[in-house]
Amino acid sequence: MKIPFHQLKAEFLRVLVKYNFSPAKAEQCATIFAENSRDGIYTHGINRFPGFIEYVQDGLVQPDAEPTLFNTLGQIEQWDGNLAPGVLNATFCMDRAIALAKQNGIGCVAVRNTNHWMRGGTYGWQAANAGCIAICFTNTIANMPPWGGIDPRLGNNPLVIAVPKQGGHVVLDMAMSQFAYGKLQSHKANNNEPLPLPGGYDEEGNLSTDAAAIIQSKRMLPAGFWKGSGLSLMLDLLCTILSQGNSTEKITDSGKESGVSQVFICIHQPDAALTEQITQQIISYAKTSNPEKEGGVVAYPGENALKTRERNTREGIPVNEAIWNKVLSL
Amino acid sequence: MKIPFHQLKAEFLRVLVKYNFSPAKAEQCATIFAENSRDGIYTHGINRFPGFIEYVQDGLVQPDAEPTLFNTLGQIEQWDGNLAPGVLNATFCMDRAIALAKQNGIGCVAVRNTNHWMRGGTYGWQAANAGCIAICFTNTIANMPPWGGIDPRLGNNPLVIAVPKQGGHVVLDMAMSQFAYGKLQSHKANNNEPLPLPGGYDEEGNLSTDAAAIIQSKRMLPAGFWKGSGLSLMLDLLCTILSQGNSTEKITDSGKESGVSQVFICIHQPDAALTEQITQQIISYAKTSNPEKEGGVVAYPGENALKTRERNTREGIPVNEAIWNKVLSL
Repeated sequence: MKIPFHQLKAEFLRVLVKYNFSPAKAEQCATIFAENSRDGIYTHGINRFPGFIEYVQDGLVQPDAEPTLFNTLGQIEQWDGNLAPGVLNATFCMDRAIALAKQNGIGCVAVRNTNHWMRGGTYGWQAANAGCIAICFTNTIANMPPWGGIDPRLGNNPLVIAVPKQGGHVVLDMAMSQFAYGKLQSHKANNNEPLPLPGGYDEEGNLSTDAAAIIQSKRMLPAGFWKGSGLSLMLDLLCTILSQGNSTEKITDSGKESGVSQVFICIHQPDAALTEQITQQIISYAKTSNPEKEGGVVAYPGENALKTRERNTREGIPVNEAIWNKVLSL
Repeated sequence: MKIPFHQLKAEFLRVLVKYNFSPAKAEQCATIFAENSRDGIYTHGINRFPGFIEYVQDGLVQPDAEPTLFNTLGQIEQWDGNLAPGVLNATFCMDRAIALAKQNGIGCVAVRNTNHWMRGGTYGWQAANAGCIAICFTNTIANMPPWGGIDPRLGNNPLVIAVPKQGGHVVLDMAMSQFAYGKLQSHKANNNEPLPLPGGYDEEGNLSTDAAAIIQSKRMLPAGFWKGSGLSLMLDLLCTILSQGNSTEKITDSGKESGVSQVFICIHQPDAALTEQITQQIISYAKTSNPEKEGGVVAYPGENALKTRERNTREGIPVNEAIWNKVLSL
């Protein structure tokens, strides 16, 4: 079934207010959850919303908490998220990073004790809307073994890089696992539809496209094998060192994905026309590569989300009926 | 055959002085080339040295050029490398980024018209030796198709992230292709020894472990398929926008890998004891993952290079006899 954006957002708003979000915070939160679904990131939009409300009920997400600054290191600000909603903390931190970048060319904001930011691309779009380049990343609960090991000790620690572009920004939003955990879950939920490429190992240690088997074995494949494994470890180091917050180990030991650590780096290149020209040229060049499949296209990061946004805005947002009913019942 | 470090370095020094490097620049350059081989990165040590001298002979690398500052944007410095040797420009730029970071917490240096920095990890070690965290990256000539395309339009654009650690820093040095181009070349040179995992496609479009076939088809595989492809594009955007330099397209059109663009971001967290404690904990946690293979270990990024460094320092540096003779004849 399909639901228009405004209806999806209104329903989120209703639930959030019921769970003690202030009207302003409920508005901001509902918008981000609805936009995530609108852009096709269903796993971090409506599909995640009931779980988010559970975290609120369990006190792992504090609707009325506010981030507090606990230290500055030159152009680096260190904030405590005080377990406020992750999407609100992340929006706040990216705003601070944008302000620092506009003042100094580059700024960095680290935040500890925050919560899941849902779709990382949200904050890439936010920075790019402000004319800035962004690099931001988060740690997560351990859900992937390091290369050479079999027990999960790394988060899939999404990395976002964004560059402003007219007509739709260039926004890379990549988890360090070959597939996002939410992607595995949605394949599993969808009659365990096979993944297009191996996404991990089964219990016997064979590379597998069986999402349920990978979730069972807890052996998700790092993107690029040892490369995604190494990059994930580095991002956990940077998140933890810069925020003085919880590492993937501490988050995992707590048993719940709460109190995570994040970093937001923002860069401001004031010559917007030059940035636009370079960005258009680089994208055009990539697109001159002949497609592998007839009728195929080479897409830039963010292009498919933009197309989905346009379609879902026009036609309504596809929602799973059971999840929609769950939201209605909250 | 094996050559001691001091002999390798002395030979590089002799050749560089012959090709009009000042004694100080020859010393710095020879040290980096010899250290790259010592740490096991043979492809960017001795194996690359004859090609580097060719570039000097062709005027693509200018031994006596110096970088010049052409603009500052707050804590961002924009330099022109003036085609000076890449290893010298990169060392200089990372030194500037370290100085900016020590002054302001974070600093960013972008350089255009520079040359191949050989082993990117060199500059990660440099920053970590100064107690800093580093994120740096370079663009390259197009050597990899974007995801969904068959013609090379992306560089493998190596990314380096470094965190200081006592007893050997944590340094990730990853090209965006599943295997570095130098790795394919060395497999090809070594009786075309199969790659451990598919590294690209053959002429028929099949995933392949045949290094020669991949070099022939020019279809190297991005690490993590669409993920490495997207990340490579983003790094080219950042290098080109921030340095106002050549993009992968311009470098490729010139026919030679010269005049590349690079970015050096450095972060200084003054509490070294805290960084050390967090780093040790995160690494220890990763190592508690049971190994996939009996006797296997989970290594942190940079750990294997460190072991190779120790062995090669003790036993001498393995060199290909033909390449060594070529260096002797220069």
